[in-house]
Amino acid sequence: MDRLRQHIEEITPLSNEEFDYIKSFFILKKVRKNQFLVHEGDEVKFEFLVLEGIYKVFYLDASGKEHIVQFAKKDWWMTDYIGFFKQKNATMFVECLQEGEVLCLSLEGREKLASEFHTMEHFFRVKLTNGFIALQQRITFLLSSTPQERYEEFSKLYPDLMLQIPKKYVAEYLGVSRETLSRLYSNNK
Amino acid sequence: MDRLRQHIEEITPLSNEEFDYIKSFFILKKVRKNQFLVHEGDEVKFEFLVLEGIYKVFYLDASGKEHIVQFAKKDWWMTDYIGFFKQKNATMFVECLQEGEVLCLSLEGREKLASEFHTMEHFFRVKLTNGFIALQQRITFLLSSTPQERYEEFSKLYPDLMLQIPKKYVAEYLGVSRETLSRLYSNNK
Repeated sequence: MDRLRQHIEEITPLSNEEFDYIKSFFILKKVRKNQFLVHEGDEVKFEFLVLEGIYKVFYLDASGKEHIVQFAKKDWWMTDYIGFFKQKNATMFVECLQEGEVLCLSLEGREKLASEFHTMEHFFRVKLTNGFIALQQRITFLLSSTPQERYEEFSKLYPDLMLQIPKKYVAEYLGVSRETLSRLYSNNK
Repeated sequence: MDRLRQHIEEITPLSNEEFDYIKSFFILKKVRKNQFLVHEGDEVKFEFLVLEGIYKVFYLDASGKEHIVQFAKKDWWMTDYIGFFKQKNATMFVECLQEGEVLCLSLEGREKLASEFHTMEHFFRVKLTNGFIALQQRITFLLSSTPQERYEEFSKLYPDLMLQIPKKYVAEYLGVSRETLSRLYSNNK
């Protein structure tokens, strides 16, 4: 739980007493490779803070094709956010690509923390602001950049993920074919 | 300013004294058709709450092609959020399509309100959560739906915008050609 404290204190300081109370809302969970934390059709009980491991959030379209919404690694938050915030059944999957550990927080717990502590309301607002900016960037990225530009942007932002995630998933996330991606990888070696 | 109070109180109640202080952070601005509230390259001074009128937020890609990030109407917030939150120069434009009025709020004012009032921190968090969900939906929409599905989703969500926004902008927002959009309009009459 030290990691959680450090993570929150990057944004707002906490007393020992406050942190002891706050951490009681989080459940530690070990996750195996290929395990699903969220499965389409199920209730979305938690948002997850990644402590270790690599994860992907994806959904299947009407034709059964997989689309990756986000990857997640240490210190990132993830879930099927539409299902989580609207308390509807999941339309997405959260799958573990590399084993690790996550902290689980329910929506009820999240709202209680935000309402009891102005500092935690602030923490969640800052995290949402960062998430909002990332989604805006992903949209402009999807609307206009070429495969080459998407590849370069992704390698610049996430050099570690480039090495840890199978190429087929990177291709899917970038919305380019595996052949195009392989060509880009070899051109940039 | 009554509209502002009503807008905030949909999420959190305010005393008269609180509201008198809060409203002092907002500047009322009348906007003419075709006027720019944000222009690429300029400082992004404000986030805007729309009181009246229709607006579009867009950017130009490397080849000069226009891409619409969002439309905005009464009660919606808008700006070049990447520029605003990161306090960098604008990479987008905010243009008025139908004259109206907006309330302008600076990032400094926003942060001050959030830090002084737990209720306002909560208000901004709720607004960001809704914005975050809308962006997630726009991403899944861009990744997987057909022109027909995009058209239907847009008409269902924003029947009023369908009537008020020139077809060429709707086509651009949906990422479909004007010919395809015209066909969809006539099929759905």
